[in-house]
Formats: sequence, structure tokens, C-alpha cells
Amino acid sequence: MNEPKTAAELAERFGEALRRIRETRPLIHHMTNYVVMNDTANLTLHVGALPVMAHAAEEVEEMVGLAGALVLNPGTLSPDWVEAMLKAGRRANELGVPVVLDPVGAGATRFRTDSNLRLLDQLKVAVIRGNSGEIGAVSGAGGVVRGVESVEGVADPVAVAVGLAREHGAVVAITGRRDVVADGHRVVGVDNGHERLTTITGTGCMATTMVAAFAAVEPDHLVAAAGGLACFGLAAEQAAAEAKGPASFKVALFDRLFGLTPEELAEGARVVWLEPPGPGGED
Amino acid sequence: MNEPKTAAELAERFGEALRRIRETRPLIHHMTNYVVMNDTANLTLHVGALPVMAHAAEEVEEMVGLAGALVLNPGTLSPDWVEAMLKAGRRANELGVPVVLDPVGAGATRFRTDSNLRLLDQLKVAVIRGNSGEIGAVSGAGGVVRGVESVEGVADPVAVAVGLAREHGAVVAITGRRDVVADGHRVVGVDNGHERLTTITGTGCMATTMVAAFAAVEPDHLVAAAGGLACFGLAAEQAAAEAKGPASFKVALFDRLFGLTPEELAEGARVVWLEPPGPGGED
Amino acid sequence: MNEPKTAAELAERFGEALRRIRETRPLIHHMTNYVVMNDTANLTLHVGALPVMAHAAEEVEEMVGLAGALVLNPGTLSPDWVEAMLKAGRRANELGVPVVLDPVGAGATRFRTDSNLRLLDQLKVAVIRGNSGEIGAVSGAGGVVRGVESVEGVADPVAVAVGLAREHGAVVAITGRRDVVADGHRVVGVDNGHERLTTITGTGCMATTMVAAFAAVEPDHLVAAAGGLACFGLAAEQAAAEAKGPASFKVALFDRLFGLTPEELAEGARVVWLEPPGPGGED
Repeated sequence: MNEPKTAAELAERFGEALRRIRETRPLIHHMTNYVVMNDTANLTLHVGALPVMAHAAEEVEEMVGLAGALVLNPGTLSPDWVEAMLKAGRRANELGVPVVLDPVGAGATRFRTDSNLRLLDQLKVAVIRGNSGEIGAVSGAGGVVRGVESVEGVADPVAVAVGLAREHGAVVAITGRRDVVADGHRVVGVDNGHERLTTITGTGCMATTMVAAFAAVEPDHLVAAAGGLACFGLAAEQAAAEAKGPASFKVALFDRLFGLTPEELAEGARVVWLEPPGPGGED
Repeated sequence: MNEPKTAAELAERFGEALRRIRETRPLIHHMTNYVVMNDTANLTLHVGALPVMAHAAEEVEEMVGLAGALVLNPGTLSPDWVEAMLKAGRRANELGVPVVLDPVGAGATRFRTDSNLRLLDQLKVAVIRGNSGEIGAVSGAGGVVRGVESVEGVADPVAVAVGLAREHGAVVAITGRRDVVADGHRVVGVDNGHERLTTITGTGCMATTMVAAFAAVEPDHLVAAAGGLACFGLAAEQAAAEAKGPASFKVALFDRLFGLTPEELAEGARVVWLEPPGPGGED
Repeated sequence: MNEPKTAAELAERFGEALRRIRETRPLIHHMTNYVVMNDTANLTLHVGALPVMAHAAEEVEEMVGLAGALVLNPGTLSPDWVEAMLKAGRRANELGVPVVLDPVGAGATRFRTDSNLRLLDQLKVAVIRGNSGEIGAVSGAGGVVRGVESVEGVADPVAVAVGLAREHGAVVAITGRRDVVADGHRVVGVDNGHERLTTITGTGCMATTMVAAFAAVEPDHLVAAAGGLACFGLAAEQAAAEAKGPASFKVALFDRLFGLTPEELAEGARVVWLEPPGPGGED
């Protein structure tokens, strides 16, 4: 498949990926936090994939062998979970199953920051998806995280995303009002979304699940990450119109995501190619 | 109480059981997976019983002593949980508290299959409730499970259910488009339900909770299992009419289950007696 | 700030606290049970604060250092969680971060009762919030708990609340049809609420989260506890009008809580000063 050159070609690819998710129903193996397990399992089903949550060291290697993507989300972490994540991640790397990392709360405590850095250090991660403060923490670029909330982001998201992407050979997605998605040489901005997303818990984790579902069927992980985020954001836009508050917004978000067609996604994606920083940034 | 002979008598018994749940409010002790804890606790309340989730080896024996039924659902299992399930199950067996097993994801990994076989081997289980692939895995009859989804079921559900029931002296319920519920000599088909149930996570686990609530008040566990499934399926039928998608379906499902009357259940249950396989199958 | 003397002054203070929560967005560090993690995280956001769920011994002391209040809710407890709660609680005490204890299921098993007594014994708790049976269990005043449900409450809630408050130098809130909130010398009754709250799981835990959010901004913990409960109950009253059943009630409850204004709270709080028991009760 050719690399998409224009925004329209990119949006077209998002639609094709969504169609492929629904045709092939890849298994998305989640090792994720207790808070969002139910929501992200449902979201996985609604987008068209199959969810499984499995964390025991005794089974994660076998489970990831059935999977189209592996989500590592150390949001309510403890040391044994981190070890099991490393085990699952290594096996995923051997098998070529894309690993999507969500560094929830990195920056809030040393244990969170260090655990995420260990995962990044020891695994080949396909996509890192975090808010601005979390990406700041794992990249060393600053930012402030209170709990799991980015209360102060990085100054230049494009430069930070590209820098971290180059460092790890990964795609980096910084979500916010404009999502910035970068690999070492390409940068995409995704403008879908709605501020209602900030009023419910776990929307970052949900975005990561979307990215993983797309990465399971789209080998260009920049396209996959941007596509998952556009799809999630577009459903949020549709849902906001009918919501009376955060809980009815969440119901509508899930309903809309389930009903979203590949054609609607290709048409509704609001995406732009951005200029990567100059080659001086690459060392 | 007489054994129900006709479908109408069976449906009548379902209604009586639902009435008894609401009058006596039995405690349903769950040792279940993280994904569905909130949903199944709510469902337990909505059908009229009381939920408790408790997994610590330090308290499960005492907790099950207060319970009308024990749910063992190793859906996000780890070795220590399996040991605590054995402990709780043994105490339930001593006390005559019915144990309902949900072999979530059996067949997907050796650890899941083996853990469920251990539970079946060491405990007297009143009802085993699974999808076709999971029951295939614990009965050795084949079937394919991807994550927690049955992607290929057993060829002859009636024969497999009866065979597994005879092997373990349990009631076996295989849920699907038609639910098949069997003990060693009787087989019931339950046709309530709606395809919307496949679009949300944990509906298998919810069905198991329903079976447990009915088993807490109905000593004929074939009747209890079929009644719990009919009740759940009927609420799903009612809910589907007002749903705009999977999340609003779930809200309506819970609302409807709460409002479902014993009379509606006795009238709306779609249940048939099926022919068990010939005695040649019994060895 | 002056101590509120009349019910109207008290209600005014509730409104001011809610305004302060939304302005300062305190972090509420939860160590809570698996069943309610998602609901209480959402509720924390909806009232205007920031949630974080963190339980690892490796990070709880650092996390609580960022927090405005710490919730200890041993609802699905295991021994390692209790140790981590003690660790977090001690650090909170050193830092002056208010600790709110929810003794979920105390009275149901010895392990639950003992664990809650250990927390009460070793920590300086700002507010204890439980149902009548749970408070009965930790105060030794009787009551019967089945699972997590109070099936028989204490005979004299005012006397029990004041007695337990004096024993521990804490505010005690016994929730029920009328919530009773007491410190050693003052007693408040809160009449907001709706019976629909008894049809969904975790409303006690949610009430505790509300108390913690208010305690993070209101140093008079009697006012904070009563304010959190009034706010929650008022949202429930508004929600009940539009609910078709328990699940749509929960959606409406969360929507309404998010939309509730400080003015509405000050006006809608139904609160009374009650007579504390005579000094003879103090020994």
C-alpha cells in the first residue's frame, strides 16, 4: 500500500482500517488498569474487535499469541503487573504483535515514571499514547501530572513527539485539543474530539484502545494511531450533540462509535499533515 | 414441589423463583473478574438479590457462610485467586451452598483451561454456565475460543451438555442463540434473548449471575439455570426495542430487569423441553 | 471562618465548598474496591475534583503527597492492600491530608471488621462514613451486615455516631434515609436523597467520595461530610424524576451532579441541627 500523501488519502486509509477491523475482528489483549477495564472492553467490541483482559504471568505469553495488538496500560500498577507486562511485551515483540503503551500517570510518582521507562527501555513499542504531561515525563521534556491529569503540558508537542519517536523508533501520540501523532519523520495533527471527553474518566485509556485496534490491522502505525484517534474523536463529536451531561455523553459515545461507518470516518476525519522539526533535531 | 412436566409448568416455576428472590434477598457471593464486577453487582441488586464481591483467602469461607449461592468466575485469574476459589468452594460444598462456575476464556490458554478443570475436579459444582467454545474446552469436545469469545462452537450442544452434566453431576448451560440447559437426563432449550447481547462485554458473566440468583432459591438447578437465563433474555428483548446502540441497550437491559415482574417472566419465557440423547451416551 | 450556627448558614457553607472544589480541583487519592473504581473516579471528576486510584506500596506515600484527601475503602480487601492503606494513611497524617474511611462490609466477616479496626486504631481518621450496620460493627454497637448491606441498623444512630466520633476524634457519618453526621459535640441530620439510591451498587462508596472531595477544601469536617452528602442526595433527587429504572437513574445522577451549581446546593440542602446526647455519654 502506498504511503498516504494528502489529508484526504490519510482519511481514506482510516476508513479502510475500520472496515478491516470489522471484517477480521482482531483480538486486543489488554493489560490495563482496574478503573477502565469494563469501558475499554466494551469500546473494543464496539469498534469491531474482540477484547481480552489477562494479566497473569502464567498465561500472558500464550494469550498474546492469539492477539492482533497488545495494550500495556500501567494505570493502577503494582510490581508483579509490571513484570507480567514485560513478559507479554517480549513475546509480542518476538511475534511481531504491535505493542501500544499508555504511560498513565507517568510523572505523578517515581514508581510510575520508572515503570514506564522500563517498559520503553526493554520493549520495542509500536505506539506510545499519552497526554502532554505524561509524554513530557517519559521524554524528559517537562510537564506536570497531578494524579493522571496533565496540569501542565510540554511547550512544543511536535518537537517532543518527534524526538521521543526517534529515540524509541516508535510512533508517539500526544492527545489534547489537537492530537499530535509523529514518527521520526512525519507528523499528523488530528482535530476531531470534543471537550466533553475531559469530563469522564478513562478517555485517554479509551483512545489507546482505539489506537491498538487500528494498529492490529494497519501496519503503518502512524496511520493507525491517527486513525484510531480520529475515529474516537468523531464519535465524541456526534455524541456531544445528544448528551445532557457526562454520563449520558458516555452512553452516546459508545453508541455512536458502534454505529460509525468507514465512510463516515473517511469523510469526518479532520486531519492535517504538519511540518516536522528540521533535521538539526535529529542526532 | 413437583417436577415441572410441561413448558408452561416450567415457566410458572421461573416466575415463582423470581418472586422468592425478591422476598428473601439471598446474598450472592461473587469471586469474579475485574471487568464485570460492577455490572454483575448491579444486576444482582436489580433482580432482587444482594451482591458481595470478596476474594481474600482470609475471609471467603466466612463470607460464603452468609451466601445463598457462590459464583466462581476466573475471568481475570491469577494463581492466588484460584486457590481462594477452591477454599470458598469447599466450604460452600460443606454448607450446601450451590456453586455456579463460569469458565471464562477456557480454551484460550492452558492456564485458563487447567484452572477451570481444577475447580471442576475438586469441587461439587451445581451449574456450569459457558459459551459453546468454553464448554467445548472443559468437556474436551472441541470448539475454539479467542480471548473470551467462542469463535467456533461444539457440533452438538445437547450431547455435549448432557455428557458434561453426567460427568460432573452438575447442570450444564451452554448459552447462545438457543441456550441449552441439561442435567444427566433432562434438557431444556431457552429461546429468550437478543443479538444486542453480543455487542456488550460481560453478558456471559451476567447470565451466570442470574443463574446463581435463581439457584439460591430454587433447589432444582435445571429449573434455576433455565429460569435465570429466560429472565435475562426476556429483559434483553424488552430493552432492545428502546436501544440506540450497545450502551443505551445496556442501560435499558438493567432498567428492564429491575422492573420485570414474576408474572411477565412466567408469561414471556420461551422454553422447550428437548429430547436427551439415548442411554447409549451414558456410560 | 465562623462556625455555622443555623441550618441556612450550614447550607451556605456547602455551596461555598462546592465552588472551591471546582476552582481548586483537589486530587482525591482513592484506595478503593474494584467494584466502584470507575464510578467513583467519574463522580470525583463530575463534582469538580481530580481522581487518582493508586494502591502500590511503592507509590502511595508519594501519591498522597499530591492529594487534597485520601479515601480508604477496603471493600474488596486483601492483606497487602490493608498494609498499603496503613502506609498511605500514616503519610497523610504527617502531611495533614484528611483521611476518609469507608468500612465497607465491616461486620460481615472478622477479616473485614478487624482490618477496619486496625485502620481506625493506627490512623488519625478525619471522617468515617458507613451504613448503620457497618458503623455498628466498628463501634461495637451491634447491627447486622449481610455482604455489604446493612440488614439491621443500630438502635440510636445519633448516640452511636457521637460515641464513635468521641472515641476516635473523628467525624462520623451514618448514611440512611436520614444521614446522621456527628463530631464529639455537634450533630447534623441530612435529609437529601432518594430511595432509588438503594437500587444501584456502590452508592455508599460514592457518598464517601463526595465527603472526601468536600473535606479536601473544607477544614471543618462536620461541614464537609454533611455537605458532600447533601450534594449527592440533592443530585439523586433531581435524577429520580427522569429515571426509568436503576441504570438510567445512575446516568441521570452523574449528569445532574456534574451540572449542580453551588447556588442550587445552598438552596436545596435539607439539613437540620440535632441535639447531641447529654454529657453523661462522654466518659
